[in-house]
Amino acid sequence: MNCIMLFIVYLLTFIHFSYCEVKYIEIKAPLKGERSDPGSPWPLPRSWTRTIATLTLAPDTFELKSAHSKDCDIIEQALLRYRGLIFDQPSSTKISPNHRELESMRVTISDTSCGYPKLGDDEHYTLSIPSYSHGATIKAKTVWGALRALETFSQLVFTKNQDGHNYYLINATTIEDWPRFSYRGLHIDTARHFIPVNILLKNLEAMAYNKLNVFHWHISDDQSFPLESKLFPNLTQTGAYSPAHIYRQSDVRRIISEARLRGIRVIPEIDTPGHTQSFGKAFPKLLTACYVGDEPFQAKYNVHGEAEILNPSRNYTYQFFKDLFTEIRGLFRDEYIHLGMDEVYPECWESNPEIREFMNLQNLRTMTELEQYYARRTIATAKQIGYKYMIWQDPLDKGVQVSNDTIVQVWKSSDEKRNWQDDVRSIARKRHQVIVSSCWYLNKISYGPDWIEYYKCDPRSFEGSLDEKEYVIGGEACMWTEYVDQTNILSRIWPRASAVAERLWSHPRDTNSTDDAQFRLDEHRCRMLRRGIPAQPIGPGFCGPYDLTSNANSIISSQNQLIVLMCSLLVITRINFRAIF
Amino acid sequence: MNCIMLFIVYLLTFIHFSYCEVKYIEIKAPLKGERSDPGSPWPLPRSWTRTIATLTLAPDTFELKSAHSKDCDIIEQALLRYRGLIFDQPSSTKISPNHRELESMRVTISDTSCGYPKLGDDEHYTLSIPSYSHGATIKAKTVWGALRALETFSQLVFTKNQDGHNYYLINATTIEDWPRFSYRGLHIDTARHFIPVNILLKNLEAMAYNKLNVFHWHISDDQSFPLESKLFPNLTQTGAYSPAHIYRQSDVRRIISEARLRGIRVIPEIDTPGHTQSFGKAFPKLLTACYVGDEPFQAKYNVHGEAEILNPSRNYTYQFFKDLFTEIRGLFRDEYIHLGMDEVYPECWESNPEIREFMNLQNLRTMTELEQYYARRTIATAKQIGYKYMIWQDPLDKGVQVSNDTIVQVWKSSDEKRNWQDDVRSIARKRHQVIVSSCWYLNKISYGPDWIEYYKCDPRSFEGSLDEKEYVIGGEACMWTEYVDQTNILSRIWPRASAVAERLWSHPRDTNSTDDAQFRLDEHRCRMLRRGIPAQPIGPGFCGPYDLTSNANSIISSQNQLIVLMCSLLVITRINFRAIF
Repeated sequence: MNCIMLFIVYLLTFIHFSYCEVKYIEIKAPLKGERSDPGSPWPLPRSWTRTIATLTLAPDTFELKSAHSKDCDIIEQALLRYRGLIFDQPSSTKISPNHRELESMRVTISDTSCGYPKLGDDEHYTLSIPSYSHGATIKAKTVWGALRALETFSQLVFTKNQDGHNYYLINATTIEDWPRFSYRGLHIDTARHFIPVNILLKNLEAMAYNKLNVFHWHISDDQSFPLESKLFPNLTQTGAYSPAHIYRQSDVRRIISEARLRGIRVIPEIDTPGHTQSFGKAFPKLLTACYVGDEPFQAKYNVHGEAEILNPSRNYTYQFFKDLFTEIRGLFRDEYIHLGMDEVYPECWESNPEIREFMNLQNLRTMTELEQYYARRTIATAKQIGYKYMIWQDPLDKGVQVSNDTIVQVWKSSDEKRNWQDDVRSIARKRHQVIVSSCWYLNKISYGPDWIEYYKCDPRSFEGSLDEKEYVIGGEACMWTEYVDQTNILSRIWPRASAVAERLWSHPRDTNSTDDAQFRLDEHRCRMLRRGIPAQPIGPGFCGPYDLTSNANSIISSQNQLIVLMCSLLVITRINFRAIF
Repeated sequence: MNCIMLFIVYLLTFIHFSYCEVKYIEIKAPLKGERSDPGSPWPLPRSWTRTIATLTLAPDTFELKSAHSKDCDIIEQALLRYRGLIFDQPSSTKISPNHRELESMRVTISDTSCGYPKLGDDEHYTLSIPSYSHGATIKAKTVWGALRALETFSQLVFTKNQDGHNYYLINATTIEDWPRFSYRGLHIDTARHFIPVNILLKNLEAMAYNKLNVFHWHISDDQSFPLESKLFPNLTQTGAYSPAHIYRQSDVRRIISEARLRGIRVIPEIDTPGHTQSFGKAFPKLLTACYVGDEPFQAKYNVHGEAEILNPSRNYTYQFFKDLFTEIRGLFRDEYIHLGMDEVYPECWESNPEIREFMNLQNLRTMTELEQYYARRTIATAKQIGYKYMIWQDPLDKGVQVSNDTIVQVWKSSDEKRNWQDDVRSIARKRHQVIVSSCWYLNKISYGPDWIEYYKCDPRSFEGSLDEKEYVIGGEACMWTEYVDQTNILSRIWPRASAVAERLWSHPRDTNSTDDAQFRLDEHRCRMLRRGIPAQPIGPGFCGPYDLTSNANSIISSQNQLIVLMCSLLVITRINFRAIF
């Protein structure tokens, strides 16, 4: 009797050990919702049919292959990368004797282009793991679809302990999948704090695990200018926090290259005409001197600094940014640049006599007209050098009109006076494509499972025609870094941005229960942890032994994992032996 | 002219580079308050006289010595440790040619006891760095005072770049210092999430950097029981999350030993009679079966689980905990145990016929009387095995009377119905010593610089007599871990707990400006970062090159630091050369 009891304990321990588990906050309020099976993907595919037939994979001999890997480094690298991600747990190298073996996965694409990802790319894929054949298949039109499919495939694989061995298993499954939105972004501010390159690279990995496809890089701001410019080296020599806090152009190229391999666009933001104080250190002529009375360079607390916001009255300003944007266009490979244009407070411009004179000459009667002058001229500059462009919503709020091909990012959250959905509708009616961020400001932390609010937010949840809703082409989670740096950025982004990622990829009909989603999200956060992303927990519980060594920001040493696992297995085995003998 | 300009840039870069700097959120609202000089200590000493005379230290030859180091491992280890902490930046090994050298620091204590720290220890010290002599002195009554003094001394040392060399400097200084409160605690819950041993050890280091002296270890709760018991091995075999999520007794001994070396007490909390579901897995008899109608083991959503809260009617319960407490008393070395006693909801007890019968027999008329029965008997058990004890405030809220020597921890925060200061006063009037945590729940995160609210909170800010205020013997920052694990615990505790630490150590008269304190706190958080604690930022800005490699939870490799520094110096030197030639 005692032996049987202990054997049950041993089995229970095994189950505990193999799978992650999120727990209640209080006994009296157990978690609602349906627990997901191991190997449940995040974000949820469009159509996902899973059978009970379970296949086994052999880490040493499983073939992950594609006829395109010779011609396209994206495919070649992805196959290598996903082999590591699929077989990322210490395990038996043998196949489970109780299951049919899945011997291979073949990836096929019909359009073999192998360039940079761009807005509107086809990411459709089908994934078939038949129960009757030894070979699985991924079919996609483009390489980007193939990347999304490989991510899904890697998530379907799980491990299970049987008879003291840890086997890789997968259910026979058919998936057809494509994203709801083409623009699925994550924004990081590297000006309030410099975020080290290795953290940005790790973040790109996490984005790929969540099928996010745009890294919106808010490079510069008032506080610092960290991007090396060969044309204007003084920008970082005076504008960066220190010589150590600079993104070299080689760093940028590496980031863009790693992003491309994961189907992630990198859109640089050079925010103007506000948020530009760091430019003024090397190029004081760019900024507007703020006046108090007749005195220039006078700060007025809570109104303006001594000098701030670009001077829109000087040709010098436009020429400078034309040159800078041209350099940036050569460095960053995306079709788009984000031009910022948020939070242009009029007080400093108003106080400056040179600007008042310029307005008279140009017949600009209001500050809004001046802002419109700046916006149009800057957008024209960007267009002239071959850029497409995005801006924050602020100019449109004030009635500034910009050319129709400008993508507008709605960021202001709802309060007593405004409702972000109204902003989206109003901008969509002006026939601008819209990116929604209002409900996804990850920096605005709050206690508890705030992913739930992110999950519930829908970028198309405004009253409007179908046609108007089509103008919403995506959304973006934003991480401003006033209170965030390398110590906490990754744990604070993940898995909170995962909630946004599923909202932007999956069909809302299938993803309307946070009670159900929490279990899949928990598995996904544990998966990220296993892959070296220090994603924070969504509730009490644990993952696996890898959560003990998964120090934030450090890549998990698989050796360490192995040691922990082996020690744990020894403990378990001891219990087991005690039970049997 | 251009040369001079560039030389100024070079100097500015140097200043940037040497010192950390916290920045404004918006240009229009520059930070208020007085910037502290480098080498400003946190928490602020009682009396601190700093002269402009600056001395230089030679890392290779500086003597940090004490006559007591042979007899007391605490002193011996501290001298070794602080040598590393003082000289923790890549630097020239030479002394600055422009300053007199400080050749040594001699530590003297009058009471040479070298045991475990306890409540009420004398932590007074004087520290003298004269400008006219080559030797500095620390004098303290106890080893604990000497530890606090060494911490302060290590914080007074700073580095400065002169002529391309990085020198260690210190101002001639006189300090007399002692803590305002004897109990300065930090509480960590290791039941909602298992916090790995290396993280707990790192946290002890950070506590020492902040002169906190009590680690209140909330070991177990409903969700898990992670403490190895030799007496009841089933407790962890079924109650721990997994065999990997257990604190072995050797782990506990190591934690206590490292804490002792830093003058930190470790108080274990075994929370009863609520928060005990994890005990029930191995010992179901301990728990109360909850009834719905006549049916036992019935959960009622948001009221009770199937079985929960210890069964106070069985002698078995008291005997079990007597045995467990006895084992714990032998393992943990502190005089105190925390007995919990929070959040005892009456519904399950009320529903159970066995308990109703017991109440009849014992003539207990109300649930409060039953709770009082449990509390008194459990406290008597603790007393019997030689323990002193603490509890949470809950029993006293309900009118339960417990013996006067029970320390009561006030944790409930103010809301519409209650005011925590009233709770403190009411408990102090009942002549219980009080620990305040109400305003220091670190887990309840909010956006922005929430350290300010922690800093403003004073545990004696209630209307009461001086005598009543004396009953408040300290405070404690609490980190509950529902949403916190190894990925985010250290960055979330630090430097927010530093605000609490200064409030508990320093005189409120000298620490009433958060505008001034922010600069010293910023320097302190950068100091912690340099020492390998991933303390999060309090605002925009940067520390030094070490903030690039200071991955959370990983000890900074000084080699990496050196490389970053050398690269940076090369850049600076290039600027410099360009300026001169």
